[in-house]
Amino acid sequence: METVPRDELDARIARLQETLDRQGLTGALILHNVGTYYFSGTIQTSFLFIPVQDEPLLMVLKSQERARRESSLDRVVPIPGRSAVASTLAEAGLSLEGTVGLEMDVLPASLLFWLQKTFPDCRWEDVSSGIRVQRMIKSDYEVAQIRRALEVEHEAFMDLTRFIREGMTELEVDSRLAMLARQGGHQGVVRMRGWNQEMTYAHVLSGESGTDASYLNSAHGGAGTCVAVPQGASPKKIQRNEPIEVDFSVGINGYLGDQSRTYVIGSLPDPLQKAHDCSFRILDRFRAIARPGVPCEAVFRAAVEEAEQAGLGANFMGYGPNQVRFVGHGIGLEIDEIPVLADGFKQPLEPNMVLAVEPKFVLPELGVVGLEDDYLVTQDGVERLSITKQEVLQVEEPDR
Amino acid sequence: METVPRDELDARIARLQETLDRQGLTGALILHNVGTYYFSGTIQTSFLFIPVQDEPLLMVLKSQERARRESSLDRVVPIPGRSAVASTLAEAGLSLEGTVGLEMDVLPASLLFWLQKTFPDCRWEDVSSGIRVQRMIKSDYEVAQIRRALEVEHEAFMDLTRFIREGMTELEVDSRLAMLARQGGHQGVVRMRGWNQEMTYAHVLSGESGTDASYLNSAHGGAGTCVAVPQGASPKKIQRNEPIEVDFSVGINGYLGDQSRTYVIGSLPDPLQKAHDCSFRILDRFRAIARPGVPCEAVFRAAVEEAEQAGLGANFMGYGPNQVRFVGHGIGLEIDEIPVLADGFKQPLEPNMVLAVEPKFVLPELGVVGLEDDYLVTQDGVERLSITKQEVLQVEEPDR
Repeated sequence: METVPRDELDARIARLQETLDRQGLTGALILHNVGTYYFSGTIQTSFLFIPVQDEPLLMVLKSQERARRESSLDRVVPIPGRSAVASTLAEAGLSLEGTVGLEMDVLPASLLFWLQKTFPDCRWEDVSSGIRVQRMIKSDYEVAQIRRALEVEHEAFMDLTRFIREGMTELEVDSRLAMLARQGGHQGVVRMRGWNQEMTYAHVLSGESGTDASYLNSAHGGAGTCVAVPQGASPKKIQRNEPIEVDFSVGINGYLGDQSRTYVIGSLPDPLQKAHDCSFRILDRFRAIARPGVPCEAVFRAAVEEAEQAGLGANFMGYGPNQVRFVGHGIGLEIDEIPVLADGFKQPLEPNMVLAVEPKFVLPELGVVGLEDDYLVTQDGVERLSITKQEVLQVEEPDR
Repeated sequence: METVPRDELDARIARLQETLDRQGLTGALILHNVGTYYFSGTIQTSFLFIPVQDEPLLMVLKSQERARRESSLDRVVPIPGRSAVASTLAEAGLSLEGTVGLEMDVLPASLLFWLQKTFPDCRWEDVSSGIRVQRMIKSDYEVAQIRRALEVEHEAFMDLTRFIREGMTELEVDSRLAMLARQGGHQGVVRMRGWNQEMTYAHVLSGESGTDASYLNSAHGGAGTCVAVPQGASPKKIQRNEPIEVDFSVGINGYLGDQSRTYVIGSLPDPLQKAHDCSFRILDRFRAIARPGVPCEAVFRAAVEEAEQAGLGANFMGYGPNQVRFVGHGIGLEIDEIPVLADGFKQPLEPNMVLAVEPKFVLPELGVVGLEDDYLVTQDGVERLSITKQEVLQVEEPDR
C-alpha cells in the first residue's frame, strides 16, 4: 500500500516546528486523527509528540505493527495505554513541560482534563490555527492525490449522464455514486472538521429537494431519508425539466475532491438556466481575478456582485435566512479547510492553495443549480483541476 | 417525513431532569448533534437548554424553519448567532447559573472555553455519563427503528449470496452494500461516539484481509483502500474457500443495526469452520444466560470460556496485541453505545437494552470469521432481533 513519502513528513514537521517556535511552545501533542495522519503518515491510535526541536515521537496504542508499517518516522514506539505516555516520553529523553500546543477546536474537553491532571506542571495552548494555516498550502504530492480523486469523480459524473432516468429516485442515483466511488477507490470516509458537521460522499437533489436547507454549512441541504440525517438524497422521484444537483466527494490517500454539477432530463426552465449561466460567469470571473495576493473576501465580493447584477442576490448560496456567506473553501484532508472565500476573510490567496469554488443558486420551489470546481492557486493565477465540463450535463435519453 | 413522537421526547427529558436533580445540576446545555436529536427530535444546529425543572428551550441557528417542522418541543426559537444565547434564555425566563451539565466526552475544548468566558458565573460539570446510561434503555419506538434497520440489512445479506463471485474485489461487494443500504433507506451516516473513531456502513474482509487490525476498537480492521482510512474493503480479489466477513450497519431514523455474517464460495477450511461453530455456540450460551440482573462481565467471561474450551482463546476478538476485550456493545443512535459486554463492566443487563453481540475469531493468515447478532433484553431473557440465519452463508454458484 502507498505510504506518505518521508520528505513530505519532514517538511510538514519542520514547518510546524517554526510555528511552535514563533508561538513560544515547547512542542505540540497531536491527538486528532487527521493531525496524526498529516504529521506521521499513519492514523493508527497514537499520541504524537512533536518537540519544537528534536525528532517527533509517535506512541502507538493500536495497531502497533500497522503504525510501524505505515509511518516512516524514525521513532515509532508501542505503548500499552495512555498511562505510559509520560514514561515513554522520558525514555526518549523528552518531556511535556512549559507550554504545549493542542488542537483545541477538536480536542474533547474530557481529554484536556486528563492531560491537565496527568501533567500538572504543563500549560496548554491552542495550536490548531497554526496547523490549519499550514495545511492550507499543499505540496505537489498532496495536489496529485486531489487530482486522482477528481478523476474518479469525473468518471462518475459522466456515468450519471447515461444512468439517470425519469422516475428514478434521488436515492437510486445516490447509491450509484456510492458504488462508483468505492469501485474507483474512494476511501469510504469524507472528513469534516467543523463541530457537529458531517457528510456522506454525495448530495443528489432534484427540483424542490434542492431548496431544503439543513444544519450543514452549505448552500444546499436536501431532505435526506429521515430527520436524524436531514441532508442529501431522498426517496423523491426525479422529473423531466427539473434541475438535478449532484455534489460529490471522493477521497484518495486522505485527500478529497469536492465538485458539483447540475443535470437535467430535457431542459431547465428559464430562471434556472439563467442562474446556472451566472454560476458559470462567476467561475469565469474567479479565474480572471484570482492570483496570489488577492484577498479571499475580494473573490467573494466579486461573486456576490455577479449574482446581484443578474438579479439573483437573494438566491446566491442559499435563500433567505439559510444563505451561507461564502463562495468557496479550501479542500485537503478535510472538506472544510481554510481559506474560506468569504466576507471578512482578509487572507490573501497564496500559491499551492487548493480551493473548491461553488457558486450556487437556490430558487424557491424550483431547486438548486450551480457549479463547484476545484482550483490550484499558481504563481500567477489559478489552474483548474476539475476535468468535467461546466455546462449543464444533459441526461442521455436513448428511447426518445 | 416521520418525526420523533412528542411522548418520546417528554419521557427522555423527564428522565434527564431526574439525573440533573440527583447530580445537583441546574440544567444541561445539550450541544452535540446526537444529544440534540435525542432530546429535541431535530438535529438542526442549535443550543438546547434543559433546566432541571421547567420546559426545555431549543435555540436554533440553522435551519430555523426546518427545526420548527422537525421538533415537537413547545419552545423552539430562532437565534441569529451564539452571542444571542444569554439574552434568548433571559427572554424565556431562564438563565445559566449554578452548575450546568455538558457532554464533556465530545465537547470541543474551544467551545468549553467560550462557555466559560461567556457565562463566568456558571460552573460546568460532565453529564455525559448520565446521558449515556439513560440512552442504554430503549423505548418501544427506538426498538422498532432498529428492527427496520435490520430488515434492510437482512435483504442485503441475502442479496450477497447471489451477488458475490470468485475474483470479485472486496470493494465491488462493499459498493453493492452501499447501494442496497441507500436503496433500503439508510440515512447515509453511521455515528460513532468514540474519539477518533469512524465507520463506513460496512467491512467486507476476505481471507487474509480479515487479519489486518486497525485503529478501530473492533475485532477486525481490514486493509481499506489507503493508509488514510485503513479499514474496510480493499481491492483484494475474493477467492474460493476463504472466509468473507461482512460487518454491516444501516441507520433508520438515526437508529443503527449492526450485524456480521460470514460468507464462503465453496467451503471453509476446517480451522475456520470450527471457529465459526464456536461463534454460534457463544451466541447460544448468550441466549441461555442473558437476562436482567446478569452483569455484562459475566456474559463476556462466558464467551471467553467457550473460546478457550475450543482452544481459540488467543484468536478471540482479534489476535495477539490487537485483541479487543469485549464481545458486544449497546447500539442505538451511535454504534458504540453502552453497556459494553466486557471484563470489569459490572453493569447488570436491564430490560430494553439493545445489544450487538459479536463473537469473532481472527486466525493468522486465514482470516476472520464470526457472527454479530442484535438482541433486545426482555423481562426474563433476550429476544433475537436479527432475522438472518446464523449459519455460514453459502454463495450460490449458478455456473457449477
